[in-house]
Amino acid sequence: MEQLHKRKVFRYSNGQMEEKIDSITVEHPITIRINDKEFMTIVCTPEYIEDMVIGFLASEGVIPKYDSIKEMWFQEELGVVHIKTDMHFPFYEKMLNKRYITSCCGMSRQGFVFAHDALTAKEMKSINVRLTPKDCFSLMEQMDQAAHMFQHTGGVHNAALCDANGILLSRMDIGRHNALDKLYGHCLKNNIPVHDKVIAFSGRISSEILLKVAKIGCEIVLSKSAPTELALTLAEQLGITTVGFIRGTSFNIYTHPERIVAE
Amino acid sequence: MEQLHKRKVFRYSNGQMEEKIDSITVEHPITIRINDKEFMTIVCTPEYIEDMVIGFLASEGVIPKYDSIKEMWFQEELGVVHIKTDMHFPFYEKMLNKRYITSCCGMSRQGFVFAHDALTAKEMKSINVRLTPKDCFSLMEQMDQAAHMFQHTGGVHNAALCDANGILLSRMDIGRHNALDKLYGHCLKNNIPVHDKVIAFSGRISSEILLKVAKIGCEIVLSKSAPTELALTLAEQLGITTVGFIRGTSFNIYTHPERIVAE
Repeated sequence: MEQLHKRKVFRYSNGQMEEKIDSITVEHPITIRINDKEFMTIVCTPEYIEDMVIGFLASEGVIPKYDSIKEMWFQEELGVVHIKTDMHFPFYEKMLNKRYITSCCGMSRQGFVFAHDALTAKEMKSINVRLTPKDCFSLMEQMDQAAHMFQHTGGVHNAALCDANGILLSRMDIGRHNALDKLYGHCLKNNIPVHDKVIAFSGRISSEILLKVAKIGCEIVLSKSAPTELALTLAEQLGITTVGFIRGTSFNIYTHPERIVAE
Repeated sequence: MEQLHKRKVFRYSNGQMEEKIDSITVEHPITIRINDKEFMTIVCTPEYIEDMVIGFLASEGVIPKYDSIKEMWFQEELGVVHIKTDMHFPFYEKMLNKRYITSCCGMSRQGFVFAHDALTAKEMKSINVRLTPKDCFSLMEQMDQAAHMFQHTGGVHNAALCDANGILLSRMDIGRHNALDKLYGHCLKNNIPVHDKVIAFSGRISSEILLKVAKIGCEIVLSKSAPTELALTLAEQLGITTVGFIRGTSFNIYTHPERIVAE
């Protein structure tokens, strides 16, 4: 499926208007059907679609284990991903968007907002990966270089799975968390451990992104951009190291600085 | 409610690490209860909350008319907005996230993705507002100036309601469409007509943003950033003028150029 579409636009520049052909980022609706029942539609950049669906269903707790997906096929002409599974949580759909009002996980209302987040976000209690400041700069730069698509059209988010030595996998998407779901789905399908890896992300670290990192199970998240207060409250409680505003020769460590070590 | 939170961070700069106090953007979960039943939770920047809820419910077709809201109060300590209404569409909840597969509105599957969008997006058949190139540059610059918050912390979206003479109202939010819902809610509450107005937006024009503009009922959307192909397909069909990449002395007109006129 195409990720860029050629389109005629009117370009105004310095008082002159002219027609030109421009490349536009494609958004594509993908519908997930589980055991012949429509489950959800996701609007995304149409590449690595099966990885995205695997990562989405696992991280959101709908089909937590990849092994539970017995069959999966993509009906490209309709934009439908079909899944057969023996372990689907039908109560999940009812919980979507429902507020979590109980103290069972010891969090205040400043913590988890949605019930399904509390079920699947993992708490990081140990240290499986450490980065030096130099690693932080280098990984962010490598992600920028990998982000060809962004340079072409603007307007997509990039995410990369890294270890201290470099980027292992880089994905982009028009949707913020789709890029992360694509990384996670690839890891699940190929049995790549994630607990000792780092996520680098091109955009702001919102609560949604922080929770996705926690659901995937990574201990460090890096970004050029700013975090939000809710993301940091969650990161504090979940044991995740957040590093933001990585620009030039400086950055901020917001939570759990113990994983950022001297060279 | 606070929109910025002071927090201690570790600042690394040119080989030195120091502690400093930083301002972090707040995200706050707001739960909407309609006629004593929980409807939805929205994570947002906590200002103009009632406007946001009014705009969200109207643009999404849940409570299309502001007059149908009989009572409304914000329980700040719980983050809950209570609404009493005599005109609530209970079928709405069932439709959320459901794919729209019918040809009743004459659109292909490249058009509307979600059923509720097709119900509330308005088609613009006339021309109630025109802008010159100079207006486009000037409005984008005014929005930048109004966006104080962004300059402080990074990571929020800005939206402004404008006419050819300038910005009438400017709102920001951590969530892309919340900023637009805040504008729309204010207009509904204060009986401000929107059909002859323009939306300026700080971020990418995705299908979600384009649909929100169509639901509000504005004919022109301006952005510094890029649109997506799905947004342009929708804009073409809905009669909306999209102007993107407004930077320096140039911009692109992607759809319905008839509303951009010579000086």
